[in-house]
Amino acid sequence: MSDLSRTDLAIARERIAPAIHHTPVMTCRAIDEVSRAELFFKCENFQKSGSFKARGATNAVFSLDDDTCRRGVATHSSGNHGQALARAAAARDIPATIVMPETAPQPKIDAVREYGAEVVFCEATNAARQASLVEVVARTGAEFIPPYDDLRVIAGQASCAAELIEDVADLDTLIAPIGGGGLISGTALTVAHYAPHIAVYAGEPVAADDAWRSLQTGQRCSNDAPVTIADGLKASLGEITWPIVRDHVHDIVRVDESAIITAMRLIWQRMKIIVEPSCAVAVAAILSEPQHFVGRRVGVILTGGNVDIDNLPW
Amino acid sequence: MSDLSRTDLAIARERIAPAIHHTPVMTCRAIDEVSRAELFFKCENFQKSGSFKARGATNAVFSLDDDTCRRGVATHSSGNHGQALARAAAARDIPATIVMPETAPQPKIDAVREYGAEVVFCEATNAARQASLVEVVARTGAEFIPPYDDLRVIAGQASCAAELIEDVADLDTLIAPIGGGGLISGTALTVAHYAPHIAVYAGEPVAADDAWRSLQTGQRCSNDAPVTIADGLKASLGEITWPIVRDHVHDIVRVDESAIITAMRLIWQRMKIIVEPSCAVAVAAILSEPQHFVGRRVGVILTGGNVDIDNLPW
Repeated sequence: MSDLSRTDLAIARERIAPAIHHTPVMTCRAIDEVSRAELFFKCENFQKSGSFKARGATNAVFSLDDDTCRRGVATHSSGNHGQALARAAAARDIPATIVMPETAPQPKIDAVREYGAEVVFCEATNAARQASLVEVVARTGAEFIPPYDDLRVIAGQASCAAELIEDVADLDTLIAPIGGGGLISGTALTVAHYAPHIAVYAGEPVAADDAWRSLQTGQRCSNDAPVTIADGLKASLGEITWPIVRDHVHDIVRVDESAIITAMRLIWQRMKIIVEPSCAVAVAAILSEPQHFVGRRVGVILTGGNVDIDNLPW
Repeated sequence: MSDLSRTDLAIARERIAPAIHHTPVMTCRAIDEVSRAELFFKCENFQKSGSFKARGATNAVFSLDDDTCRRGVATHSSGNHGQALARAAAARDIPATIVMPETAPQPKIDAVREYGAEVVFCEATNAARQASLVEVVARTGAEFIPPYDDLRVIAGQASCAAELIEDVADLDTLIAPIGGGGLISGTALTVAHYAPHIAVYAGEPVAADDAWRSLQTGQRCSNDAPVTIADGLKASLGEITWPIVRDHVHDIVRVDESAIITAMRLIWQRMKIIVEPSCAVAVAAILSEPQHFVGRRVGVILTGGNVDIDNLPW
């Protein structure tokens, strides 16, 4: 907990408040019945840029000094962090460059450009992505805003759980999906500082279970080219997020691909909201290992809604 | 206005309040920009049973005396009214029979049965539907609850606009889709009684434009086997709804099928909520005839979210 103090979290929350949505909390009797729990869904699919990533990106961008701002910001992302950073940069009226793989879906490319950011394409390998980012930073002097392994980003993501525990009294459990660990780290730190009686769980695809293996072995593990429909959760834990997860996450529940799709359909059909596969992982986890959740008041972070409605997994 | 007084509307609203959701109002900066209006979306897709029909069905069922209740309720519906009536009957713990065409989609049949109602199948013609309903009523003594041409139903639907004008100050325009006219009649009567300065518009598919033709000619017209993706709007105005529409609806905006699909995609992609084609008609109308809406504060009733996610129109 030495990494981010209560004050750090409070400052981040106040800093980003004017630029993000305080998202609503929804409930669903039908899913409560299936899960035999009381679920409170934090709807980050309604967040600016379509995911919780707006929180971390905004905090990072808004915390930069004016000199750094003039040179702009950059990141690599094929997904929500790219859109979120592009939007945060637009909100502060500074340049942003997003390195994206040539294979990125056109809607994601369009979304980044609509926020006014420059898109630089690279081959769809980690090495090419890193090289492109280094080149962009060398050329522009831009500040690199990592997608998750960054205390400014984690402090921003922490604001989501802060709103949730304020808005819903007496939660005893919280669950969010885990990829690189930025959201769950922020969530766990909020809980540690403000509501330490709450048990924090993470849901993870079996196909990208580096965090689960890390907890099992006590050593940070990584994913090697994972294949999962939960495309936001392919990343591996970082140097900063791993010890936070190790020390503050109660347990990690792994779910297979069919459970993710079933959970996603359940949310679409019963809640009438659009969520992406990655955030169905948390609901899949609740249904897969009910022993942690039955009879509890569970906060569930629905992380985003940026799904290609022309290519649904059913 | 002699049909339903202010008191009638107030009684209906109070009667159903414990059994329905006071649904949220959402806004969307992206759609505001496209429409150049301020839109306030009343989210009846989040309503019990997935559509505003829960309001009218609940008011009808809850207003029955105990003797009538013992014999149960019945209706014909291939859509949302059937689910709504099944749920309202379950809430009062009385029997319900829903006459459905053999061709009804399995999810809709399942939904009705999940609420505990009996489903009676008939051929997919108006004549067969009527004959089956008459048979059911003769056999059971059930009270027929019509889908729209009924003052109890209209009084229930009126509660939707009542919530909206309370929750959003200074609306100057309201729009809802029009099919049989139950929702728009309730909406127009609420406005007439509580906020007569608001202009009420209806959106209607060109392919089922009986209401538009009725307003043009001053004579109640009907649709003959219309084909439109907005399956909730195929019905024609009734004897009760027609004069209310004639006297209290400012204008009707017709939209073609491609405009409906475009509006539906826009809502899904930008608002991250699931709405059915019928309710995209209102948004399509705003975009098709902007002269009525630009610069205004417009309440938009999103009527329902019961869409077959395995058969999307794109």
